[in-house]
Amino acid sequence: MLNVTEILKRLVIGRAMRSEELTETLLPKRLALPIFASDPLSSVAYATQEILLVLTLGGLAYLHFTPWIAGAVVALMAVVVLSYRQVVHAYPSGGGSFEVASTNLGPSTGLVVAASLLVDYVMTVAVSVASGVDNIISAIPGLAHERVLMALVFVALLAAVNLRGVRESGRAFAAPTYLFIGGVLVMVVTGMIRYALGDAPVAESAAYGVTPDPADAHLTGLALVMLVLRAFSSGCTALTGVEAISNGVPAFRKPKSRNAATTLAVMGSLAIVMFVGVTTLALISKVHITDDACRLTGLSGDCASYTQRTVIAQVAAAVFGGEHSFGFYFIQAATALVLVLAANTAFNGFPSLSSILAQHRYLPRQLHNRGDRLAFSNGILALAIVAGLLLWGYKANVTSLIHLYILGVFTAFTLSQLGMVRHWNRELRGEPDTAVRRRHHTARMINAVGAVVTGLVLLIVLTTKFTQGAWLAVLAAAVLWVTMRAIRRHYDTTAAELAVTDPHGELVPPSRVFAIVLVSTLHKPTLRALAYAHATRPDRLEALTVSVDPDETTELRRRWEEYGIDVPLKIVDSPYREITKPVVGYVRAVRRESPRDIVAVFVPEYVVGHWWENLLHNQSALWLKSRLLFTPGVMVTSVPWQLSSSAHADRPAARAAGSVRRGEPPPVPPRPRSR
Amino acid sequence: MLNVTEILKRLVIGRAMRSEELTETLLPKRLALPIFASDPLSSVAYATQEILLVLTLGGLAYLHFTPWIAGAVVALMAVVVLSYRQVVHAYPSGGGSFEVASTNLGPSTGLVVAASLLVDYVMTVAVSVASGVDNIISAIPGLAHERVLMALVFVALLAAVNLRGVRESGRAFAAPTYLFIGGVLVMVVTGMIRYALGDAPVAESAAYGVTPDPADAHLTGLALVMLVLRAFSSGCTALTGVEAISNGVPAFRKPKSRNAATTLAVMGSLAIVMFVGVTTLALISKVHITDDACRLTGLSGDCASYTQRTVIAQVAAAVFGGEHSFGFYFIQAATALVLVLAANTAFNGFPSLSSILAQHRYLPRQLHNRGDRLAFSNGILALAIVAGLLLWGYKANVTSLIHLYILGVFTAFTLSQLGMVRHWNRELRGEPDTAVRRRHHTARMINAVGAVVTGLVLLIVLTTKFTQGAWLAVLAAAVLWVTMRAIRRHYDTTAAELAVTDPHGELVPPSRVFAIVLVSTLHKPTLRALAYAHATRPDRLEALTVSVDPDETTELRRRWEEYGIDVPLKIVDSPYREITKPVVGYVRAVRRESPRDIVAVFVPEYVVGHWWENLLHNQSALWLKSRLLFTPGVMVTSVPWQLSSSAHADRPAARAAGSVRRGEPPPVPPRPRSR
Repeated sequence: MLNVTEILKRLVIGRAMRSEELTETLLPKRLALPIFASDPLSSVAYATQEILLVLTLGGLAYLHFTPWIAGAVVALMAVVVLSYRQVVHAYPSGGGSFEVASTNLGPSTGLVVAASLLVDYVMTVAVSVASGVDNIISAIPGLAHERVLMALVFVALLAAVNLRGVRESGRAFAAPTYLFIGGVLVMVVTGMIRYALGDAPVAESAAYGVTPDPADAHLTGLALVMLVLRAFSSGCTALTGVEAISNGVPAFRKPKSRNAATTLAVMGSLAIVMFVGVTTLALISKVHITDDACRLTGLSGDCASYTQRTVIAQVAAAVFGGEHSFGFYFIQAATALVLVLAANTAFNGFPSLSSILAQHRYLPRQLHNRGDRLAFSNGILALAIVAGLLLWGYKANVTSLIHLYILGVFTAFTLSQLGMVRHWNRELRGEPDTAVRRRHHTARMINAVGAVVTGLVLLIVLTTKFTQGAWLAVLAAAVLWVTMRAIRRHYDTTAAELAVTDPHGELVPPSRVFAIVLVSTLHKPTLRALAYAHATRPDRLEALTVSVDPDETTELRRRWEEYGIDVPLKIVDSPYREITKPVVGYVRAVRRESPRDIVAVFVPEYVVGHWWENLLHNQSALWLKSRLLFTPGVMVTSVPWQLSSSAHADRPAARAAGSVRRGEPPPVPPRPRSR
Repeated sequence: MLNVTEILKRLVIGRAMRSEELTETLLPKRLALPIFASDPLSSVAYATQEILLVLTLGGLAYLHFTPWIAGAVVALMAVVVLSYRQVVHAYPSGGGSFEVASTNLGPSTGLVVAASLLVDYVMTVAVSVASGVDNIISAIPGLAHERVLMALVFVALLAAVNLRGVRESGRAFAAPTYLFIGGVLVMVVTGMIRYALGDAPVAESAAYGVTPDPADAHLTGLALVMLVLRAFSSGCTALTGVEAISNGVPAFRKPKSRNAATTLAVMGSLAIVMFVGVTTLALISKVHITDDACRLTGLSGDCASYTQRTVIAQVAAAVFGGEHSFGFYFIQAATALVLVLAANTAFNGFPSLSSILAQHRYLPRQLHNRGDRLAFSNGILALAIVAGLLLWGYKANVTSLIHLYILGVFTAFTLSQLGMVRHWNRELRGEPDTAVRRRHHTARMINAVGAVVTGLVLLIVLTTKFTQGAWLAVLAAAVLWVTMRAIRRHYDTTAAELAVTDPHGELVPPSRVFAIVLVSTLHKPTLRALAYAHATRPDRLEALTVSVDPDETTELRRRWEEYGIDVPLKIVDSPYREITKPVVGYVRAVRRESPRDIVAVFVPEYVVGHWWENLLHNQSALWLKSRLLFTPGVMVTSVPWQLSSSAHADRPAARAAGSVRRGEPPPVPPRPRSR
């Protein structure tokens, strides 16, 4: 059945993989860096721009704050990277912030972290893809009208690549990330040399003036501080994704923790160098960018149809000699590619975090299963769908989306650093060795600084962004938190109800079995059901029919006698022409009479081969069976009769799967193993 | 479960009815007339208009053909009514044209009639509702933009009323039909008196001229004949629905045939008087109506925004003194109402014809079941959906829809009259009584004339309408015909496969039963399944688990031993993390070893109460069971464990149903009856 679907699935995601192949998907550092670090590295493509966009709300006057803000972001990044190196060493199992917070601050706090991270993974996909599309449009302005479509296509491609599994996606993603790093470093060095030689690059927007937004012109005191803090909040997007490595520790080759810590350090250094470089060049080349092109003065054409290029595009054009130079196209291509691939960080992080949460029974257990290719398929699909909806709803606009962003990241940062402080406190309590104590003290100091700093930033982000869209992210996280607790409660209740309390008592078979064979007409399936029911040697055997049409019932009784069937045929009337209720009622009546018996209901069924054939037969058997399952003390037995068309339908699926899985031992028959 | 749905259903369609109440829904003649005759009677509201619309294609010159065409339609109607009185007497079972044609011309020809009638029932709904909406717009021109919405609302209301059952719909529909008959008769008499007194009514369009359509101006010879024949074809819409009474004979009170024949005669006379009257008044008052208002000359305003009133509206305004007179509003209201209700003829005819076809296994048997209110609910819903789609697709435009119409009616007329001729031939063969022979000869003559005349009309309709839209109706009927034959073939094949050939051989129980209990974890449902499997005393009992996660499997084995369960636990590996394939493979391997045994697979399941709880549990049991049903020689037993939430879910449905069914004996427990 469904062999076309099966073939399509194989084409998109590849052959199924055996569970033992899981170890082969472990990552060396040179692949782990691009997979886990493409998000923080690529954010240099928009972090600078978001700082400038906020500052130019007040005209060009406030641009001199840029270096201070950039400096604060760099310091913050150093603190966070150092803090997370501690996490990677202390918790190599890959739970990351969630595990740290759960273990040290209690499961409810851990869930806050988890909910925040899930929301932020979605935002990472949305913002990165939207920004990637922006940079493509900077290079090819004619595509400006296909913004949303392009974004959705990229999300779909990312989902497909990730459904194929971690290792392949690592390979596909390594090259662009390295090209981007190389390109930006070359650009920064070239620009600096030109500046040193007195030939400073000049951006295309350097000559434009900026009319301040009336609300933000001539700010003083607190208002000015707020504007600067807003710019800082926007710049903090550079820090997203740092925790991805701490969640991904188990995917590293051994020694996992050390490799992860090294990768974290390399990533942090690269991010800082690239961010500082791009920001410096933006200031040197005098990039003037605004949220609304109509606030630019000195434009030659109509401002409504003027598309401002991204900051990194303007810098590249200025450094490499215009928007037709090879260097410009190279930077744009690499930036766009790395941004789209940065979303891949989330496509690694979201499904594995969901899987961990599902394992802890906070999310449906389907999210814990690995798919055919050993990836967490359900998590990947969920992420793609939600991110796609966001991109569609926000028309793939980076500046709108960015307001919903980073809140979750900093919640996770703060709580996990707080948790780490507790962790070290506990470690110190029983530790006599002074050398070890000294190391623990240092680590605790690092994490304490991290907690205070990131907590401060969280407050700043919350106050400056809440009304601009961050409320939606807060709401989403809150809803997730409540839902996850409800799911856990449901699983706990169920498990408690199902737990074995008295194995021997529960294994005692019921005293008697009362078998009832449901009969509608006398055909082969009915006779087979009667024969099978006989074979189970019940203590009492009856046939039961529901009389809807008196003529049919009379005919049934006549043939029953004609065939000489020695099973009593009970007839229940159904004045409302229903089948289910009279049968359930009869079964309940039997149970009331002898509550310690079990009732075995035999349902003769015939199985057809094509889905449309089901439309031609009443599906009352399915409905009846599902209602009987709600009745205590019954077991419901389907006795199938396979019509010839069903044999035809049963084979193709196996054949299709087998033909794709050539070169491997056939999965059927399995090898039975006795205990 | 679903108690809200249940309550809503009760609100819309009323309390459920017992099968014995069916006889109460038999109809006296005074209710049968409006139910079955509203279609042919109401068609006077558009038959005249459609004749005029075709003739004015050639300007005002051809309007003098109108009396001749109307005369031909009247003669045809007399022939058809007389012919169908024979059918009603000869075939009182209500099969109507379908039964006559099947019995006398073979099942394939019968199916042609059935397919044609089904298509025409749909068209009756579409045309009548569209014309009713037209007449409402004639009275209240402001509603012109809501045409399609109004049409769809009327179709939905008709479906709801019919789902409540035949008797109620008869009552609801009797008054408007009688008001319409009375109103039109008063209008005709008033108009004639005014004409006789020399004060002839003048229509609002009497002064307008008509520019001929260039293609149809100054026609001569064959072209003129074709135009007149087209007008005649359109006028034949007056004959639709005549066969409804012959299909509805079983719904009449006894003596069924005589009552039906009388009703048919009354209906025919009324239809002829009303049609002749309206047509005469339209000619007297000089109604000038065109398919395109811009071909009218002498209009004061812009022709594009001018809405022409229907013919019956113009006549009513002329007779009763303008479009603000009480008489005008009364006629419009009654016309609109009776037209919408005329669609009800189809809502009676379509479901009962489908039910007969389903009984003959030409349509899915769901169409044969009576719903809660003893109406054929599925047929009613199918008709409403298809008619709604047509109205939506054709923007509720009467003239577009009418081209698809009457083809089916005349196919049915012709074939059933041919069938009647054969019927009388057969009757005559063995009949010695000369008086009876003479009556049969007369009857055969009537039906032969009917067959020839309606066959001729069928040819005319086919040639004049095929390219204008009738091809779609022909295609739809052809597709239906092929589908119905395929469905019958499927049912026949299935029945042959399932037919009992050797009752004693098939009742011999299989030699041995091999029971397999599927185990995922060790919880109460598993223990219960083991206990129940024990109670069926199988010849061999095994537990089977699929190993996806080695740790979980080890834990399962450990607890299996700890509890001292003396059933062997088999473990099959599943390298691809699938459950279904290894289990099916194992069962097949067992069957291969001992093909004469049966395998009883026990599936422990737990039942949850809310649909969303199912999302939190893997539904692999359902899928697994449905795959096992395709495996020969197995029976699949579900052993349910009811979680506490399921008990809560099982009760409300019964309670809700019970509360609606107050005043009747509760349907549960049913009264068992031993044979």
